[in-house]
Amino acid sequence: MKQHHWPLGFSASGVSAGVSYKKGKKDMALFVSHFPAHGAAMFTSNRVKAAPVVVTQNNLLETRGLVRAMLVNSGSANAATGHQGYKDAVLTAEWAAQSLRFPKNQIWLSSTGVIGPRLKLKNYKKGLGMLVNRLKAETVSQGALAAEAIMTTDTFPKIASMKFHLDGVPVTIWGCCKGSGMIHPVLRGPHGELHATMLSFILTDASIKSIPLQWALEWVADKTFNCVSIDGDTSTNDFMAVMANGASGAVEIKGRRTKNYHIFRDALHKVCDQLTDLIALDGEGASRLVQIFVEGARSEQSARTMGSVIASSPLVKTAVHGADPNWGRIIAAMGRSGVPFEPRKVKIWIGDTLVCKAGGEHPFSEQDVIRYMRNKRITIRVNLGLGHKKSQYRTCDFTGQYVGINAGYRT
Amino acid sequence: MKQHHWPLGFSASGVSAGVSYKKGKKDMALFVSHFPAHGAAMFTSNRVKAAPVVVTQNNLLETRGLVRAMLVNSGSANAATGHQGYKDAVLTAEWAAQSLRFPKNQIWLSSTGVIGPRLKLKNYKKGLGMLVNRLKAETVSQGALAAEAIMTTDTFPKIASMKFHLDGVPVTIWGCCKGSGMIHPVLRGPHGELHATMLSFILTDASIKSIPLQWALEWVADKTFNCVSIDGDTSTNDFMAVMANGASGAVEIKGRRTKNYHIFRDALHKVCDQLTDLIALDGEGASRLVQIFVEGARSEQSARTMGSVIASSPLVKTAVHGADPNWGRIIAAMGRSGVPFEPRKVKIWIGDTLVCKAGGEHPFSEQDVIRYMRNKRITIRVNLGLGHKKSQYRTCDFTGQYVGINAGYRT
Repeated sequence: MKQHHWPLGFSASGVSAGVSYKKGKKDMALFVSHFPAHGAAMFTSNRVKAAPVVVTQNNLLETRGLVRAMLVNSGSANAATGHQGYKDAVLTAEWAAQSLRFPKNQIWLSSTGVIGPRLKLKNYKKGLGMLVNRLKAETVSQGALAAEAIMTTDTFPKIASMKFHLDGVPVTIWGCCKGSGMIHPVLRGPHGELHATMLSFILTDASIKSIPLQWALEWVADKTFNCVSIDGDTSTNDFMAVMANGASGAVEIKGRRTKNYHIFRDALHKVCDQLTDLIALDGEGASRLVQIFVEGARSEQSARTMGSVIASSPLVKTAVHGADPNWGRIIAAMGRSGVPFEPRKVKIWIGDTLVCKAGGEHPFSEQDVIRYMRNKRITIRVNLGLGHKKSQYRTCDFTGQYVGINAGYRT
Repeated sequence: MKQHHWPLGFSASGVSAGVSYKKGKKDMALFVSHFPAHGAAMFTSNRVKAAPVVVTQNNLLETRGLVRAMLVNSGSANAATGHQGYKDAVLTAEWAAQSLRFPKNQIWLSSTGVIGPRLKLKNYKKGLGMLVNRLKAETVSQGALAAEAIMTTDTFPKIASMKFHLDGVPVTIWGCCKGSGMIHPVLRGPHGELHATMLSFILTDASIKSIPLQWALEWVADKTFNCVSIDGDTSTNDFMAVMANGASGAVEIKGRRTKNYHIFRDALHKVCDQLTDLIALDGEGASRLVQIFVEGARSEQSARTMGSVIASSPLVKTAVHGADPNWGRIIAAMGRSGVPFEPRKVKIWIGDTLVCKAGGEHPFSEQDVIRYMRNKRITIRVNLGLGHKKSQYRTCDFTGQYVGINAGYRT
């Protein structure tokens, strides 16, 4: 198992509290900064927003990004629970504020799981007590317990970390996330509208205030979490957040044009890119990961839209499952994306093999491509021949297991 | 087997010509009017349009809707075949024009099947000869052969017909169509852009010119074929067409405000509604049909958009497969539809059982609803509480068989 770096001044814990419908699974996690911290976050763009999403968004706006703790449960989404669900969420934040002695608007909440039922408040309160008691000194193994607790249908915990230097001072970013169904995040900042249940919690001991942290997070999310689709369904609970507590002692990162801002943003990008890769690798029922590169586009946005439509096509995803180099399904999906392009300028590669040129078939060894497509990771590359913008999108194949998991998820 | 009505003045045939990748299957069909006929048609809105779609759209515009014959093949889409594919399509129209002694721009072409490969022209020409030879007198059993020939992964031929009276004179509409994958039609008229491989061919001995026929067809398509989704993938080859030859001797239908226009449009609506129902019933791998009613919307368009997103959600479709009354997935899909609504006004019924009220859970007998959801046909009804517009959308459940069919469709 990979050894991860843990940032200074943070503690975490993960316990089994009985709030999930899955008996015995760890289902609550807590991340705490020992120092005042600045936060940035992105929220689902689904019009139906879970109660914890609403509470956290309000807290972020009220405090302008001050945050001390992130409290998460899995197995119960507290979404479509009406005003009662909102009151439940507020109550859980109050409990956490009392236990931890932080202002209640510096507690960020997050939930994932079944939509509709109310939280099991009694178990939640008991779980919170256990989480607070187990907030040991700052160790990476406690982070791993938290990463385990946020899992739902995930088959493994998803963690990435990175250590780098700002003016010679070591700085750490640690992050975890969960997939693995209802994944098609369209996250936006707190002032806009947003959209997957993808959850991600990132901790760093860098010193950076909320506004530049939010810039960095939005830039990174658009290239990572907003570019992965498991099933095209966007959750009511998607949430990702970063807490930065400055405990590294490194100089404060200011302004978008500074060298340190770019070093930090690149490191955050790498961490989020690794986490996104783990989500696609662990898509519900998935047997292989697909990276879709759209190149030669007029804008990054149009490249991303086209990547999204290819990645969401059930016909492309089943062809990938069958290791069938059926590029016709790729170009058909491109055609319904709404992105303007000229079919006769299109080239498509599967792996390194050109299979479509000038919008028509290019001769290739079918046997070679079939063999390539049986790998655990494959790439599909599309060039529109219109410009120089590009995007990377990740997805996985569509399998009978996906159907099995989701036809039996709740009952 | 249901006995169908056949309109006067039409012949049809269906043969096995060896143009499909499926050996021995009937794969070519021909519909011919013995009298000059007026046509209306709708085409895929996919930006990648198959060659026969382009040729037919040009013919329709050039002749202002005059048409004598519709020639169809299955198993080979002639899409993404470049300029050569276009020349192939033109050539097949020329062959048909010569054999049938009709002007070549009054031949409408249509193809469905694998995207990418060229048509097998030699077999196509031989098949055309067989089709013309077998154009027997006007019998409904010949129509059934044609309906069989246009099938791809369909498990049964799809036919609907209706007899009605205009001023006492009997008039007949007969139609057939195919599904059953890459089905999410967004058909538009010949002057606009359009989008599924759904094919439908409708014959009527009513007397109506192309312009009012096109009005009727567009109105009907928006309530029928444009409201069905099997897998959310829109084809390069979608096409539907009506030929009206006036052979009934009934008075000509003129103008949108006449009684006869409305009688005709209602009859066309019933035929297309039955055909749409058959498509959803025979969706690839489907075990049950779902009718989704969206009510209380501000506009019919917004109701249809929301119906489309619910119908395309893999999580809703797998829950239906598992007979799981997981209404949370329905409201989550609604939330990502882009249609503005207030969650607290939402009601959701599964069958006749109210399961969600004011955007939250409404107590219901889970066992009763599970039992209901095991039926072959189920309904989901959503009320937004915003207005009085509504839509009906059809889909089917998502099954392991769907994956099996499409992971192995071509190879």
